[in-house]
Amino acid sequence: MATQSVPSAFVITPEAFLAHWQGHRRLTRRAIEAFPEDQLFSFSVGGMRPFGALALEMLGMATPTVRGVVTGEWDQYAAGEDRSRAEILQRWDETTEQLESLWPQIPPERFQETMTAFGMYKGPVYELLLYVIDNEIHHRGQGYVYLRALGIEPPGFWVRD
Amino acid sequence: MATQSVPSAFVITPEAFLAHWQGHRRLTRRAIEAFPEDQLFSFSVGGMRPFGALALEMLGMATPTVRGVVTGEWDQYAAGEDRSRAEILQRWDETTEQLESLWPQIPPERFQETMTAFGMYKGPVYELLLYVIDNEIHHRGQGYVYLRALGIEPPGFWVRD
Repeated sequence: MATQSVPSAFVITPEAFLAHWQGHRRLTRRAIEAFPEDQLFSFSVGGMRPFGALALEMLGMATPTVRGVVTGEWDQYAAGEDRSRAEILQRWDETTEQLESLWPQIPPERFQETMTAFGMYKGPVYELLLYVIDNEIHHRGQGYVYLRALGIEPPGFWVRD
Repeated sequence: MATQSVPSAFVITPEAFLAHWQGHRRLTRRAIEAFPEDQLFSFSVGGMRPFGALALEMLGMATPTVRGVVTGEWDQYAAGEDRSRAEILQRWDETTEQLESLWPQIPPERFQETMTAFGMYKGPVYELLLYVIDNEIHHRGQGYVYLRALGIEPPGFWVRD
């Protein structure tokens, strides 16, 4: 395995980080599947966005962020316009493949560099990537409340396979 | 800076990881403060736990997990029994200090080792630590729905200082 001079400790490798994210994405996929088709873009609590809109936001961030980190070129952020659960799940699976393909192209030193995501969000790349995952967890947690309010048991939070 | 032979890429250093977590914890603290005292342990949506119970869970996991990672000794998990917002905020701030004190004591190689948290949850240490943060984000997202349902605007998700 190639080595270079790096700080004496690190928390997580790129490979493990992607695996962690894909685990979260499998869980989020199950949360999308748990919504009845007719509630995904209509039901909400407290005037918030419905879960379908939140899922579109996740899709709009995932591949474009990693592509931006790889290439240094950032599209304008766009949430997309799917309007059926099946379309969202299909885009979800396409994103899964895109992440697997793009991720190994991130140069090793890139994670510690500073970039400006979507021309707006400036920070260390590790923070930009964590933000995408954190945002997914945040909104999925909201989806769990919607599911409970609909009388549906959400998928187990700790199950990631 | 001390160096050792490690994989050629890593995502995040221990120092940056703790800073990321403490940023999330500042945000969660603001979410706790945003709840009216009389709703923190009573209001919920869909039969879920009220946000005070979720905050107690976060407190029950944070310091005990990092202490376990440092010492290899794990207390039995306990959520604690505070019942006022002021007590929870005080414990929150004590935990902030405890994490700052304990974190640098984690041996550099420990993050990649496997441990069993609270005698029950076995995994790489980086996953055990991510789980604590992810769980906080997940439940805080639920708290945001409660706040919106109460007609209260939650703190900005992207603000971490």
